[in-house]
Amino acid sequence: MKTAAVLGASGYAGGELIRFLDAHPSFDVVFIGAHSTAGQKLSAVHPHLSGGDRVLQSLDSPLSHDVDVAFLALPHGASAAPAMALLNAGVKVIDLGSDFRLDSAQRYEDAYGISHPFPDELGAWVYGLPELFRSQIAATDRIAVPGCYPTSAVLGLAPLVAAGLVSQTGIVVDSLSGTSGAGRGGGDGLSFGAIDESVKAYKVLDHRHRPEIERALDLVGDSGSSVLFTPHLVPMQRGILSTIYAPATEAGTELDLIEAFDKAYAESPFIRRIDTPPETRWVVGSNNGLLSVRLDVRTQTAVILVAIDNLVKGAAGQAIQCANLMFSFDEAEGLPTTGWMP
Amino acid sequence: MKTAAVLGASGYAGGELIRFLDAHPSFDVVFIGAHSTAGQKLSAVHPHLSGGDRVLQSLDSPLSHDVDVAFLALPHGASAAPAMALLNAGVKVIDLGSDFRLDSAQRYEDAYGISHPFPDELGAWVYGLPELFRSQIAATDRIAVPGCYPTSAVLGLAPLVAAGLVSQTGIVVDSLSGTSGAGRGGGDGLSFGAIDESVKAYKVLDHRHRPEIERALDLVGDSGSSVLFTPHLVPMQRGILSTIYAPATEAGTELDLIEAFDKAYAESPFIRRIDTPPETRWVVGSNNGLLSVRLDVRTQTAVILVAIDNLVKGAAGQAIQCANLMFSFDEAEGLPTTGWMP
Amino acid sequence: MKTAAVLGASGYAGGELIRFLDAHPSFDVVFIGAHSTAGQKLSAVHPHLSGGDRVLQSLDSPLSHDVDVAFLALPHGASAAPAMALLNAGVKVIDLGSDFRLDSAQRYEDAYGISHPFPDELGAWVYGLPELFRSQIAATDRIAVPGCYPTSAVLGLAPLVAAGLVSQTGIVVDSLSGTSGAGRGGGDGLSFGAIDESVKAYKVLDHRHRPEIERALDLVGDSGSSVLFTPHLVPMQRGILSTIYAPATEAGTELDLIEAFDKAYAESPFIRRIDTPPETRWVVGSNNGLLSVRLDVRTQTAVILVAIDNLVKGAAGQAIQCANLMFSFDEAEGLPTTGWMP
Amino acid sequence: MKTAAVLGASGYAGGELIRFLDAHPSFDVVFIGAHSTAGQKLSAVHPHLSGGDRVLQSLDSPLSHDVDVAFLALPHGASAAPAMALLNAGVKVIDLGSDFRLDSAQRYEDAYGISHPFPDELGAWVYGLPELFRSQIAATDRIAVPGCYPTSAVLGLAPLVAAGLVSQTGIVVDSLSGTSGAGRGGGDGLSFGAIDESVKAYKVLDHRHRPEIERALDLVGDSGSSVLFTPHLVPMQRGILSTIYAPATEAGTELDLIEAFDKAYAESPFIRRIDTPPETRWVVGSNNGLLSVRLDVRTQTAVILVAIDNLVKGAAGQAIQCANLMFSFDEAEGLPTTGWMP
Repeated sequence: MKTAAVLGASGYAGGELIRFLDAHPSFDVVFIGAHSTAGQKLSAVHPHLSGGDRVLQSLDSPLSHDVDVAFLALPHGASAAPAMALLNAGVKVIDLGSDFRLDSAQRYEDAYGISHPFPDELGAWVYGLPELFRSQIAATDRIAVPGCYPTSAVLGLAPLVAAGLVSQTGIVVDSLSGTSGAGRGGGDGLSFGAIDESVKAYKVLDHRHRPEIERALDLVGDSGSSVLFTPHLVPMQRGILSTIYAPATEAGTELDLIEAFDKAYAESPFIRRIDTPPETRWVVGSNNGLLSVRLDVRTQTAVILVAIDNLVKGAAGQAIQCANLMFSFDEAEGLPTTGWMP
Repeated sequence: MKTAAVLGASGYAGGELIRFLDAHPSFDVVFIGAHSTAGQKLSAVHPHLSGGDRVLQSLDSPLSHDVDVAFLALPHGASAAPAMALLNAGVKVIDLGSDFRLDSAQRYEDAYGISHPFPDELGAWVYGLPELFRSQIAATDRIAVPGCYPTSAVLGLAPLVAAGLVSQTGIVVDSLSGTSGAGRGGGDGLSFGAIDESVKAYKVLDHRHRPEIERALDLVGDSGSSVLFTPHLVPMQRGILSTIYAPATEAGTELDLIEAFDKAYAESPFIRRIDTPPETRWVVGSNNGLLSVRLDVRTQTAVILVAIDNLVKGAAGQAIQCANLMFSFDEAEGLPTTGWMP
Repeated sequence: MKTAAVLGASGYAGGELIRFLDAHPSFDVVFIGAHSTAGQKLSAVHPHLSGGDRVLQSLDSPLSHDVDVAFLALPHGASAAPAMALLNAGVKVIDLGSDFRLDSAQRYEDAYGISHPFPDELGAWVYGLPELFRSQIAATDRIAVPGCYPTSAVLGLAPLVAAGLVSQTGIVVDSLSGTSGAGRGGGDGLSFGAIDESVKAYKVLDHRHRPEIERALDLVGDSGSSVLFTPHLVPMQRGILSTIYAPATEAGTELDLIEAFDKAYAESPFIRRIDTPPETRWVVGSNNGLLSVRLDVRTQTAVILVAIDNLVKGAAGQAIQCANLMFSFDEAEGLPTTGWMP
Repeated sequence: MKTAAVLGASGYAGGELIRFLDAHPSFDVVFIGAHSTAGQKLSAVHPHLSGGDRVLQSLDSPLSHDVDVAFLALPHGASAAPAMALLNAGVKVIDLGSDFRLDSAQRYEDAYGISHPFPDELGAWVYGLPELFRSQIAATDRIAVPGCYPTSAVLGLAPLVAAGLVSQTGIVVDSLSGTSGAGRGGGDGLSFGAIDESVKAYKVLDHRHRPEIERALDLVGDSGSSVLFTPHLVPMQRGILSTIYAPATEAGTELDLIEAFDKAYAESPFIRRIDTPPETRWVVGSNNGLLSVRLDVRTQTAVILVAIDNLVKGAAGQAIQCANLMFSFDEAEGLPTTGWMP
């Protein structure tokens, strides 16, 4: 039994971490920390969870407990300092935030407009996408869990890029997300009246997940990946569907694309290629990813569709999948493989 | 390990039965039967479930397997014949339908307008609400699982009726349900365009769950219970919220009402009284029920609010809770005690 | 052509007032005022409206324009002072807020917990429900527009109370509302993640619309009306459905109840009794109200269902209906009589 | 006053046609025809409309009335025969269906897999997109109203294609639609349980609106347009948002793209370019289209976002806009220029 801390427990990802870890046979949650809700009972923040009498701790105090691994579900920019402190104390760190996902101070500054406080750390963290980097994850003590959109995009592109079946440039990633991806607060722009019965694109050309996708593709292919990424908000709570358009090289047929996926994910318990366009409802609630691929011979373009639950495979579930690998547990231990429907 | 059959696997309740039983440590699903989808793979009917390569069997064949218990999630009127055949073969039967919920041929005919095919069986089946009839459930081989609305209404009324704190007449039960209560098919009246962004009452004065509620109250109080029941359809998938108005006798204060609930459900792992009005989201996905109670001294009326997931505590979860008791497993074994949020 | 001012233009009701008045053949909007959004273009606040280049004015300045009638859509407690100033300047005032809906300082203090700043005005304002108080509305210069819930409840009860067909006590009003009733802001409790796929009751026993309903029933019957009112929030944007339970006197049959409604609303262009339970979608977008009535002979209870659009018949539309009467225009002029579907 | 017939009145587009024409100052609806609902009252089919006592006629009988213009809102393939009969009788025909949208028997057969019954008519019909083909519409007696997706795509591409600012090949149109686009019936796949809280792509590579988009672009540019089109279904009732990716030629800057739109639509009362990504809620209920454009200099790609209401600008509203032009009425007469919000 390993002991776990959850920092940033009051958000959606924090709630899912607690839900999964409570049910996990090999982790024991010994610390639940939050910022503004510290001092409150868990039931006041997450009325749907059991063990609601537990009290949220201040974020300052995880090291007063004997913690083997800490999950950080903190706002952007708030992870770096506690992460380094925990690592220095010998705690494995799994950061669900974006502080350590990029590989260079330059790329970080381009994406976020500020200097990174620990530039030497960039590149030292393993990108926590188990389907691509299983062995590196098992060997490290510091994981940067991918963002929700990049998880869907990279799962849908990496096998084709690695096999040389699509170009690394000229790629379009057009993604739809439920609102939980924007976090639990969010103000008037996320009110029911603002979201319900409407769709919109946002951060057109400028979303910070675009450099993250490019960096991940560079890892499996050559450098110089170039993606045009457009996220959209749709009136549902959970789920991401990414529709990906990638110029196909002359190398392959539709069957070659299919086989590249089937081979790449043959040993992955959560990712499966299907013959029909995946619906997000088929994965919501689970750590699964479903994808389909077509080759449009008219335009020589591969069209890949990927569906995940943004809070599970795109956040808390993937984080625990990484933790399982870091502690040599079964990769799927304690993680849901069935979704909710309806 | 006990072996289980699910008859009527293609509906929402059938899907939930499979999902819970697959994850249950003490039941092994050895037969999955369906009517019109027999011959299809499970993945074609429930793409969210694992083990999707299993093939749905014809409903005729459960007895060709060694089955300890059969769960029947069949349309109204379709349970009686297979239930009797299974019982005669020594299989315990848990019927999620309405065929055996009432206690007399007369009450059945009033509710359904037709004669019951096995009138002698009425009254022999145990009403499968564990919080009220735990010992009877443990001792029988035939369970009629309560309807979703009656589960919510009876949980909210029985302790007060039993304690003489409210009248058994003059009661109003006003319930809101998500659309999964109407089943998976349903035609144009259940299309997204017909349901989304609208609410309506239906079967005003005439819903068949009204006699079921009255019969259950008769079991815990005197005969002659009288309820006015109005169900409403609201644009969500899961969840029932019942708002119950019951004339309070002179016997008690609000605190007495509270204590009656706390005492009645002290040993129940799934039912909890809280001080604030429960939201359905706090229970959806779990087998939990949450309730609150107020006494309006202006009108001497108890106002009870009860929230459950109609497919879990109101159907599949409750059925498995009964099965646990019938086989002397822990009542909560294999059943979710945390909900989904968001 | 009469000139109109809208104070409180940035909310939902303010937006609807502008939309309807812009299309009204006999009103000209000469002043649009708002509090925190003063100085912004209308298009920034209501991107769906035409004439988006108009600039929102400070609330201080309506009297610098030549205004015949002012519509006040301000937060609770903010109407009284500007209303009195406008009246003193000879402007007719139609207040969509709650400041002048009750008839005595005592009832106001009971409902709102504070003293009224102009207690002598209470009772002097006409309750702006045209179907009941048409002639009084035509004769006054000060209208308190009913709340959204009271509009639905009083439309469903007044004809029966006036005819002595139901008791004035022992009444239950159980209402479902879309979220726009809670206003445009509202914080985390009204976020998409908090509202979507869930229902809840709120302000159980304590909602301020209860005394308003009782006061209105006193106006059409005897004093001493007593109602138990429970509002619920459901995941939709617009619409109220009230399910009303009223003890029927021995005086009438179901046909008598039906005839009481048909007679009471025979001359009303917007209210219609139908034989089936009304769905909110059938009225949303219009100033219509639809209602149905049944008599439950088992319990001698009248069950009335009333559907309105909370922002139209329950707010902006009703306000303009009153204005039409005050200026001797046709009651229905400029108001929508068709809804939106889907 | 001109007399109008609506054929296919029971669907969503038919309902909108009646709603708009009833309120139109220059059209009088003299015939309402439907197939399976012939003989029913309008109120039974469209409870939200006024004039509900009108009875739906058989589709056979429009010519027994004196009709100036007929609007056909019939299923695919059902328009051709009645359209030709009406034309032969001197009635102007506005077909909301797809029978006459393509320009050659070959393109029709490619798209629909069957031979066209009146191949000589193809090319004779004017494509009813007023913003591009205003004068042709005014001069013809037969209009093929564009499909909902093509309306959004062509509005967002035509000015740039015409100005040589984007390539006519390598274009991706990625569209999101509410469910009303799939019609009012639709079976289990359009049930609330199947649509709510989920998104999916459908008819990937194969949707019939793709050749229609290409044909329209050929009309404003050279022949040989090539588009990759992916439609998605999202859980809302109305609205289309198209995100369009088009390779920019070296000819222009972002400002040139902006000016091309502003110039092209300067005289169009319904189409407006804005600086922020449009939300569908800002146009739903109106005949408006909102669009924004960005140039991604990294990838030399124009990203255009277009929002319309699929049932108004994408169907019934556009049809009436064409009719206004055909009868020399003001183009915007009787059409809504404000949307609904919330």
